[in-house]
Amino acid sequence: MTTPTWLAADWGTSNMRLWAMGACGAVLGERTSDKGMGDLNPNAFEGVLIDVAGDWLTSARTVVACGMVGSRQGWVEAPYQTAPCAVSPDTMVQAPTTHEDLIVHIIPGVRQTNPADVMRGEETQIAGFLAQNDGWDGVLCLPGTHTKWVHVSAGEIVSFRTFMTGEMFALLSGHSVLRHSIADCGWNEDTFLTALSDAMSKPEALAARLFSIRAGQLVAGTDTVTARAHLSGLLIGAELAAAKPYWLGQRVAIIGADAVCAPYVSGLTAQGVPAPRADATTMTLAGIKAAHALLKG
Amino acid sequence: MTTPTWLAADWGTSNMRLWAMGACGAVLGERTSDKGMGDLNPNAFEGVLIDVAGDWLTSARTVVACGMVGSRQGWVEAPYQTAPCAVSPDTMVQAPTTHEDLIVHIIPGVRQTNPADVMRGEETQIAGFLAQNDGWDGVLCLPGTHTKWVHVSAGEIVSFRTFMTGEMFALLSGHSVLRHSIADCGWNEDTFLTALSDAMSKPEALAARLFSIRAGQLVAGTDTVTARAHLSGLLIGAELAAAKPYWLGQRVAIIGADAVCAPYVSGLTAQGVPAPRADATTMTLAGIKAAHALLKG
Repeated sequence: MTTPTWLAADWGTSNMRLWAMGACGAVLGERTSDKGMGDLNPNAFEGVLIDVAGDWLTSARTVVACGMVGSRQGWVEAPYQTAPCAVSPDTMVQAPTTHEDLIVHIIPGVRQTNPADVMRGEETQIAGFLAQNDGWDGVLCLPGTHTKWVHVSAGEIVSFRTFMTGEMFALLSGHSVLRHSIADCGWNEDTFLTALSDAMSKPEALAARLFSIRAGQLVAGTDTVTARAHLSGLLIGAELAAAKPYWLGQRVAIIGADAVCAPYVSGLTAQGVPAPRADATTMTLAGIKAAHALLKG
Repeated sequence: MTTPTWLAADWGTSNMRLWAMGACGAVLGERTSDKGMGDLNPNAFEGVLIDVAGDWLTSARTVVACGMVGSRQGWVEAPYQTAPCAVSPDTMVQAPTTHEDLIVHIIPGVRQTNPADVMRGEETQIAGFLAQNDGWDGVLCLPGTHTKWVHVSAGEIVSFRTFMTGEMFALLSGHSVLRHSIADCGWNEDTFLTALSDAMSKPEALAARLFSIRAGQLVAGTDTVTARAHLSGLLIGAELAAAKPYWLGQRVAIIGADAVCAPYVSGLTAQGVPAPRADATTMTLAGIKAAHALLKG
């Protein structure tokens, strides 16, 4: 195996992914850990990194990391850049280390003043997407627990908006009166598209339509797989209604894992908006590589 | 103490309230239990009733009950009446008892076919309200975990719609990324009314505005009491936008406890709709008394 020269880390709230990088940007190895930011005190990060990196540290002493590791509760706070701002970070923040020859650079998140909004981690996926799609102009949608819609132009994050759609799906399907009505998996595309269309045309009725899912089971015996697609359609439909300025007449691309992106692709296609998909992990790594290239100046 | 002649029970998912009733409708005593429907198997209800009623059963052997006790998972299913239907129940269902001289009548809930909806317990509050406001015509709003808007005319429940607003407030403030941003109590009326107005004018932006509460704390240091009023305003504003056909130009009354009704009264007043309030427990008891009167023919 070629010797790693630096390490790339995607360190989020619930887990951490580490790559050993070769001199020419080749990925020499990949390791993961469930020691996410959420479980760690600031002084615990270095030990976790050393444990996971192990022998890689013999040759690689520079780490570039993105994600919640740079939040106020993380290893060290990497203060947000304020949008509009360059997709490539102006400055990274060095985390304090006890091993002096271990240098850890953390990519800052991006904040927006009005409306108030924040991202941490997605900015790196966006930088990766731009690194792979030079000069790209348009809107990136990053579905997830907190879905981001981001307007990118001339190499800048112009504006963005976060929707709690994924978290609401998890809360409603796992913890609300709907929890016995929603299957864990399975899909009904017709139901999804109908619910999406209903929600887009009358998005204010969300809280009533949510209860209708439960009532539909009691009154009409609706099955739980249909209910799952129904819930997803209602929530994503409300989101698409609100995010219309982001996608209507715009060039759109979606960054994320296939399962979480599929309903967005389907919903946007139904609005006549083609939305090619890029893989989130690939974009994250590309973004960290771009940040590492900046370091070398 | 005068001898009770019958008992009234409000038996919900999480607790049970029992009243000893005198011959002329006087309340002779009140007891409560935390043995709600949610914790009980069908064959456990009778024992709980006997424990709570105790000495009252010496003279009172008839019980009239409303609430989730009559659901499919309750003591015995009291099948829904289908709206439009009379506010007074046509038929009550008798629960099976091992003590043959103990007669328990359960008030049925109300369902609606399209849009699918159900209520169980609220129909009794509505009957109580009509018993105290003879000939009343208009809309009743019953705020709670699952807020109901009910169109009542000529002694009938014409149509109704349930909103999961209360449950969404509990999930978001207790279990989402907002949980550290929302105070347990406290209020800011200006923030509430502004958020309500924002949500009513653009209700589809709910999921984005929810995340803004968290971002507002990170970016602008918004305090948690303000955030609580903000969350309440967004959710109730979206509900009022969707429930507009129920309240616009209608005579409206609100049934519920003061704390849960106050934001609705305030929000409706801001729309120029006066909304007098009636107490939920008082209405429940009045509704059970009306059902008991029907029994006697």
